[in-house]
Amino acid sequence: MTVAASSCNVRVAVMGATGYAGAGVATYILGHPCAELIWVGSNTYQGARLDKACPWLRGRTNLVCQAQDVDLAARGADVVFMAQSNGFAMANAATALNLGAKVIDLSGDFRIKDTAVYERYYGRQQAAPELMAEAVYGLPEITGDAVRGARLVANTGCYPTGAVLGLYPLLAAGLISDQDIIIDATSGVSGAGRAKHALAYHYPEINETLTAYRVGNHQHTPEIEQALSMATGTNLVVTFSPHLAPISRGILSTCYARKAEREPVEGMAARCREALQAAYAGRPFVRIMPEGESPTTKATLGSNYCDIGVFEDPRAQRVIVVTAVDNLGRGAASQAIQNMNLMLGLDETLGINQPPLFP
Amino acid sequence: MTVAASSCNVRVAVMGATGYAGAGVATYILGHPCAELIWVGSNTYQGARLDKACPWLRGRTNLVCQAQDVDLAARGADVVFMAQSNGFAMANAATALNLGAKVIDLSGDFRIKDTAVYERYYGRQQAAPELMAEAVYGLPEITGDAVRGARLVANTGCYPTGAVLGLYPLLAAGLISDQDIIIDATSGVSGAGRAKHALAYHYPEINETLTAYRVGNHQHTPEIEQALSMATGTNLVVTFSPHLAPISRGILSTCYARKAEREPVEGMAARCREALQAAYAGRPFVRIMPEGESPTTKATLGSNYCDIGVFEDPRAQRVIVVTAVDNLGRGAASQAIQNMNLMLGLDETLGINQPPLFP
Amino acid sequence: MTVAASSCNVRVAVMGATGYAGAGVATYILGHPCAELIWVGSNTYQGARLDKACPWLRGRTNLVCQAQDVDLAARGADVVFMAQSNGFAMANAATALNLGAKVIDLSGDFRIKDTAVYERYYGRQQAAPELMAEAVYGLPEITGDAVRGARLVANTGCYPTGAVLGLYPLLAAGLISDQDIIIDATSGVSGAGRAKHALAYHYPEINETLTAYRVGNHQHTPEIEQALSMATGTNLVVTFSPHLAPISRGILSTCYARKAEREPVEGMAARCREALQAAYAGRPFVRIMPEGESPTTKATLGSNYCDIGVFEDPRAQRVIVVTAVDNLGRGAASQAIQNMNLMLGLDETLGINQPPLFP
Amino acid sequence: MTVAASSCNVRVAVMGATGYAGAGVATYILGHPCAELIWVGSNTYQGARLDKACPWLRGRTNLVCQAQDVDLAARGADVVFMAQSNGFAMANAATALNLGAKVIDLSGDFRIKDTAVYERYYGRQQAAPELMAEAVYGLPEITGDAVRGARLVANTGCYPTGAVLGLYPLLAAGLISDQDIIIDATSGVSGAGRAKHALAYHYPEINETLTAYRVGNHQHTPEIEQALSMATGTNLVVTFSPHLAPISRGILSTCYARKAEREPVEGMAARCREALQAAYAGRPFVRIMPEGESPTTKATLGSNYCDIGVFEDPRAQRVIVVTAVDNLGRGAASQAIQNMNLMLGLDETLGINQPPLFP
Repeated sequence: MTVAASSCNVRVAVMGATGYAGAGVATYILGHPCAELIWVGSNTYQGARLDKACPWLRGRTNLVCQAQDVDLAARGADVVFMAQSNGFAMANAATALNLGAKVIDLSGDFRIKDTAVYERYYGRQQAAPELMAEAVYGLPEITGDAVRGARLVANTGCYPTGAVLGLYPLLAAGLISDQDIIIDATSGVSGAGRAKHALAYHYPEINETLTAYRVGNHQHTPEIEQALSMATGTNLVVTFSPHLAPISRGILSTCYARKAEREPVEGMAARCREALQAAYAGRPFVRIMPEGESPTTKATLGSNYCDIGVFEDPRAQRVIVVTAVDNLGRGAASQAIQNMNLMLGLDETLGINQPPLFP
Repeated sequence: MTVAASSCNVRVAVMGATGYAGAGVATYILGHPCAELIWVGSNTYQGARLDKACPWLRGRTNLVCQAQDVDLAARGADVVFMAQSNGFAMANAATALNLGAKVIDLSGDFRIKDTAVYERYYGRQQAAPELMAEAVYGLPEITGDAVRGARLVANTGCYPTGAVLGLYPLLAAGLISDQDIIIDATSGVSGAGRAKHALAYHYPEINETLTAYRVGNHQHTPEIEQALSMATGTNLVVTFSPHLAPISRGILSTCYARKAEREPVEGMAARCREALQAAYAGRPFVRIMPEGESPTTKATLGSNYCDIGVFEDPRAQRVIVVTAVDNLGRGAASQAIQNMNLMLGLDETLGINQPPLFP
Repeated sequence: MTVAASSCNVRVAVMGATGYAGAGVATYILGHPCAELIWVGSNTYQGARLDKACPWLRGRTNLVCQAQDVDLAARGADVVFMAQSNGFAMANAATALNLGAKVIDLSGDFRIKDTAVYERYYGRQQAAPELMAEAVYGLPEITGDAVRGARLVANTGCYPTGAVLGLYPLLAAGLISDQDIIIDATSGVSGAGRAKHALAYHYPEINETLTAYRVGNHQHTPEIEQALSMATGTNLVVTFSPHLAPISRGILSTCYARKAEREPVEGMAARCREALQAAYAGRPFVRIMPEGESPTTKATLGSNYCDIGVFEDPRAQRVIVVTAVDNLGRGAASQAIQNMNLMLGLDETLGINQPPLFP
Repeated sequence: MTVAASSCNVRVAVMGATGYAGAGVATYILGHPCAELIWVGSNTYQGARLDKACPWLRGRTNLVCQAQDVDLAARGADVVFMAQSNGFAMANAATALNLGAKVIDLSGDFRIKDTAVYERYYGRQQAAPELMAEAVYGLPEITGDAVRGARLVANTGCYPTGAVLGLYPLLAAGLISDQDIIIDATSGVSGAGRAKHALAYHYPEINETLTAYRVGNHQHTPEIEQALSMATGTNLVVTFSPHLAPISRGILSTCYARKAEREPVEGMAARCREALQAAYAGRPFVRIMPEGESPTTKATLGSNYCDIGVFEDPRAQRVIVVTAVDNLGRGAASQAIQNMNLMLGLDETLGINQPPLFP
């Protein structure tokens, strides 16, 4: 039941459709010119209308949330999005694939190639090692060619999206060292998900505060390292420190890298900016900031853009790359649609080309 | 140079394109399937690229902001949006109309029919009384028929949009009294505009606070009264109290009305809900909430929706109508596009049917 | 084990010390010049250090949270604060009183004199009717004389504090009608409490939104009516609509009242302002705003102030009173301390005279 | 007119009393048990009551803002706080000192010993080099001994406070390398000041966004370097990247340092934590977080605390120190009071020992 590459009638099922990532996917599909949302599943809202769980969709869909049964989801679907918590996709993707659907997984299940690393950071075993071998890491501007032919795509994580888009071309061009990379990133609170409404994310507790969490051991660390290592061929190590700030959506990543040894200090940032412009020429969703300007998450809000600014600290011989994404857009849902578009041979911007919402 | 009713090639100019309302219009036009943004003007950013003033538009337009000359704006334009401060449109609309353009004014210049009232609340004289006589008040679900044939439309103000959409059908159906109406509304800070970045709207001053302002004498009071009086044929008086809350976008209006004398207390809210559903049947941008549910501004964020909930206080024989809009969307820019669509005989949803952004 | 009126060595126990109200009380007591915090109880954090639950107290106390046993709490205490959910105090206050402690209850248990009304709004029976008869409603500037001699005080609720302080003197002076009073109030999210960290208060859901809730049937309605009826001797009915806005702390109440029949329209607001100034002369915690100025919650943040502004709508013959309080300060914890000070014959400002935190 | 070391009757003047830092100082002095606020100056509010500019102070002072004349300020004052923009103190401090007052400057004028460095970062010449030589850098836990005897103290900047308190003891103890230090810090918007209410800080523009600014060339860079170099005796270079997040108050600093070469990887963070505990033993305003816990700015809100957490990334042999301060409290006003207390031989906690406001 695969879809022809140029088909503009894609039937889509979303498992986990009432979490932030899944609801985002469902919302985009409802407005996608070549796709139809035929099925939604939810643990929390099973049996309720989707627009009860997602009140912004009132008037836009009559779908009712189903039990999270992959057989029901995949039967009749061309594409199944899995936006469940970790562990679900590795147990259920095979069924969907066998029923002829393509699968895009938004969890961490199929992102880490090295199963020992996976187990260390995720605290569970890789239950589907052969699918893991097949899965394509879906970061469209970097791995788009592989995504085009894929049946199973592991959608890039929210933090890795901004960090890797900012650093990969600089490593590939040999402009920065693969040693001593530090990524200091701050996320909006929606990154914690919707189901996990713990005291820590209760409005009065998280409003008007800044904090760091999982410093040095966040599960996105090996994902960033794996992706950046594709650029260098080395086994790159990064220090990654995630933070929380009181915004709903957005990740700002400030990435510190030492210049490559053979590079002169003079003009470091300018050369990096040019390399980024060259790497992303013709790619509509990556925007390079002019000299001296930092990206802001606000200018990407609700969009699929990744904005990248480059600065330098010549005294420390360091390049500082600052990137901004919407963690639920480019960092999750719209990037998943971008991957779907690529998998189906569609224009990558279909359904996700909305302008950022400002202010 | 008027456009044929069914044309899908509308050339649009936006004066005041770097304020929040005008920038919203420009952003919608850039994504409108039947329109083209051909000209933008700005006092503050004259000579600069539009995407310098509006960084979210980077990669979406190469237009440069022009001096605010109505001759330049209107020449070659089918529609001119005027999103300037009060006083500009009444001085410049005639020129644009004479050049054959239709004009949609987002200021208060052409909203108040009674010039004495206008002068009292706006502190200036009506400089274009004959155009005032011609101007159509543009609240699509209420005055849409008149908008369809209009050359000059006064786009409804942000507060009146929510208040009037909530109360008009109840007054027209005789379900509530036209005496003792109180409208207590709270707006996000973008309602203060972009140019007026006074200390009062400096982030640390306005963040984490609630306040009232212009209680009892806000200039939207007569606009609400004029619009609601169309429903009753009386000269209705309302008490209107605007407030500010620390959100960027959104207006929540809580409207208190006494039931009409002949109506029973029992079932007041249910009958009102039915009247609203009947009034807005087939209109995609007004959504009536189920019993017991309040609208939230968040479920309308970035959209053209107006969501309406109805409650009752039987002890006080009062109906309470709560409405939510995005003050820059339905309350300004997307409503202006909706009016344009109607003026041009286009489907009213073209270019403004994005789902709300959530969360 | 009662304390002498002028004692400056008050031993205090706080039950429910890790919720927002109870933690506030504990924090104030730790800095109170005449009180000592000797015991704290918590359901959630039993056995943990208080500063684990309340990280801002690190370095200020070594107390460990105890099981919520009123015998343990009251033994050795001069005053027991009960900051538990509804139902706890009516089951436990007698024990504390019998042990010789004074009790200040921050729940709704002892606020409503009419037990039928209590049961309708709170959905439970009054389990301690004789204590209810003894309990003094603790709104210091209004009922302070009774508070001075009380063993058991029901601390005024957050919404009633702002509404009653704003309207009571105007009703008592006969300046406004007791008919048609509407109170439209907006609270910060901490009003929902700390234990109840539901999805509705999850940061991404409640941030950047405005909504109404429990319109027409909130349990603070009868409390407001009972308190205002003390001023008039009538059985006053009010319409009360609570709202939520994305701030941590603060309540702004906009109160609409018709002028009393015999009063002229001219100068309504000025006379009301004078009546408020007279009523609160010499009371340090109520501040009357100058003509034309609205209070802001920000100027009361973290303090025990209630700020009151008066406006008028002469066309509708209405006075509009706007009041601001910190819902956790004046609306809960610091007002409870103020009541304690009065009960013990201490200066009412002791321990709670901090300036508001701005910005 | 100097004050005796143990005097508890200190007359204080504040120049720049209506900016955030100066208003904070004035607010603390009004509540200080041993000080009296005798004079306030303001450029913007000259001639107006202080509580007009600072509405939270209504009812707490009758002072009127004076013209910013140092003669008027210093005459009769024991201490003059200068909370003006850069350039003011270096032109006016001598006059105040000659009149016998002690001076605490909250600007950057007297912070940088190397005048060439000062000029590079501040873009102006050091106009008072001899006072610069005399001025004591006021970071109480580090330079308190020198502060005790000083006439002129340069209050530590907001960013340096958190960074230096976190790193100084680790450098002094030789636990971390003085090479490759990176400080990634995020500030609330009040750091931009009150007078500078530019579009960039207009609520709708800065709300819900994250951004970096002045990356690699912020004027606090040399101040941090100078302070940390006192610990090492070397000329330390740091990379410092400031960011803005939508909170009113607070700075979170995430500081990356390589372990010292001779130190084992095992137990890095624990040893650093112990060194911090030892360094700050007996100092009430620095709190070391338990293992695994990050400080939050919220737990320091409105207080003089600096909270410090230590993490490690053994794979990269890096220690990561995270510190939190209130940028207007510990980062400005309350630290200035702490310096005043030290200068006058008073207990350092007088007047600034309020608990943080939570939530």
